[in-house]
Amino acid sequence: MTKAATTFETRLKTTASDVETLLSSLLSDAPLVGEIARPAQLMAAMRHGSLNGGKRLRPFLVVESTLLLGGSAEAALRVGTALECLHCYSLIHDDLPAMDDDDLRRGQPTVHRAFDEATAILAGDSLLTYAFDIIAAPETKLDAAAKMELVLALARAAGPGGMAGGQALDLAAEKQAPDELGVMTLQAMKTGALLRFACEAGAIIAQSSVEDREGLQAFGRTIGLAFQLADDLLDVTSDAATLGKAAGKDAGRGKGTLVALHGVDWAEARLEALTAEAVDLLAPYGKKALILQETARFIAGREN
Amino acid sequence: MTKAATTFETRLKTTASDVETLLSSLLSDAPLVGEIARPAQLMAAMRHGSLNGGKRLRPFLVVESTLLLGGSAEAALRVGTALECLHCYSLIHDDLPAMDDDDLRRGQPTVHRAFDEATAILAGDSLLTYAFDIIAAPETKLDAAAKMELVLALARAAGPGGMAGGQALDLAAEKQAPDELGVMTLQAMKTGALLRFACEAGAIIAQSSVEDREGLQAFGRTIGLAFQLADDLLDVTSDAATLGKAAGKDAGRGKGTLVALHGVDWAEARLEALTAEAVDLLAPYGKKALILQETARFIAGREN
Repeated sequence: MTKAATTFETRLKTTASDVETLLSSLLSDAPLVGEIARPAQLMAAMRHGSLNGGKRLRPFLVVESTLLLGGSAEAALRVGTALECLHCYSLIHDDLPAMDDDDLRRGQPTVHRAFDEATAILAGDSLLTYAFDIIAAPETKLDAAAKMELVLALARAAGPGGMAGGQALDLAAEKQAPDELGVMTLQAMKTGALLRFACEAGAIIAQSSVEDREGLQAFGRTIGLAFQLADDLLDVTSDAATLGKAAGKDAGRGKGTLVALHGVDWAEARLEALTAEAVDLLAPYGKKALILQETARFIAGREN
Repeated sequence: MTKAATTFETRLKTTASDVETLLSSLLSDAPLVGEIARPAQLMAAMRHGSLNGGKRLRPFLVVESTLLLGGSAEAALRVGTALECLHCYSLIHDDLPAMDDDDLRRGQPTVHRAFDEATAILAGDSLLTYAFDIIAAPETKLDAAAKMELVLALARAAGPGGMAGGQALDLAAEKQAPDELGVMTLQAMKTGALLRFACEAGAIIAQSSVEDREGLQAFGRTIGLAFQLADDLLDVTSDAATLGKAAGKDAGRGKGTLVALHGVDWAEARLEALTAEAVDLLAPYGKKALILQETARFIAGREN
């Protein structure tokens, strides 16, 4: 293993642990200023759906892109944790019976199985709402202008023109398989938009130049494509035990993926090319970019 | 009818029409900067769940509380419309089969009946997310600091310690009827928090003093209590044709309300007292407060 890979693994674990600690504290039963009360069952469902030992890749991207550009790591951790709340909301709602109808997530019962459907809907709604609270709260020590840009970029990445819209396209794809452009739009929205935001957030937090922000956006978009391609490849080549969820279900339900359209060999070559492109995009930052470049390699090579 | 009542009715209609126009434009199929694409079916579901000719009471409170304190009416309309998106998301999710399981809303099929359950979940998620987009967007001409306060106050009013938490308490109340304190907490969260925010928002938009902000919060809290009491009274005394939804269902499902606990006579007297209290709270503003005071009377006397 290279030195960069070892450093990457250590830092990924450290950030995951920091996110877990901050999330635990943010999702306590004690109401904040301006809150009336926090229902215990709802908070338990929110914790169940978010404190589940994930890799916390999105917060990691926020933290590392912020460090690359010289911004505050403390603010980045809070923004990353807000993004993780929003990501977890999307998983809770995706798992609902009316959506993907999944019983397991990371080997544990999904929120609607562990609690009930209504509680899962509300826990998702609450995590989504809370993401904006965390960014706007005084504990996130950033200029109001930077917070505002973060709120806007996050809302746009997550809303009807981003992640939620991508999920709607995904539902439509079950009825009629999309063409290649349709698949790419769906993926850019459903998984790409939040990953792009995660990288762009670093440039907003560090109040960097337009060039830096566009560079990080391009990096985020590229690893987003790689992430989805790796996911689709895993779905074909892996088994349920490694994935922690039902494998082969995308193909089984007739959804179009780039792997289905072009085959495994093409997809593997494309994944390699995307990884090289992502690494190149950060070349101007020299050694400071090693960790983010390693993250791009990790995304291409991950096993779940 | 008094002159204030006539002016109130005219202005309520004007604001409702302004909100409808702005919502139509905001919920068009054309993607905004930073959005990838807007799926037509999702946008149609968002419009179905929000462009339904409501009274737009919450936006009206934002606009009128802003005008009372000398803030920008244009900014208030955008913030009020954001709040309306959030309110409509809550109605769409409340109507879902796993929640209240309602087929009709304002005499029209609910979103999950007009479309499907998955689309209704996503339309709600998208309207919630979009509320924060509308506040943060450059078209809302306010200082970043004011926008930030609005985002924070709205997220806190709508999240697990506010409206969403109130909905969770409401679900729990179906299994075990709460005591009086429980009923009051539930109502303060489920319907009170957004009405309080609507009034408080005016003070944030106008960048008023702490005293003004607290005064408007108190007014919002009081009309929130009145609103819920009037709702509970209507549920007992009205019929489905007037309400546009199933009447008597709260009592039918054994939910505790203050009307159930104390009777209709007590509730009517209490409603009158709350209205007088709300009117008094704005007495320091003199004639400028006439419209908001009339709004308090309207809330106590409304028929649906």
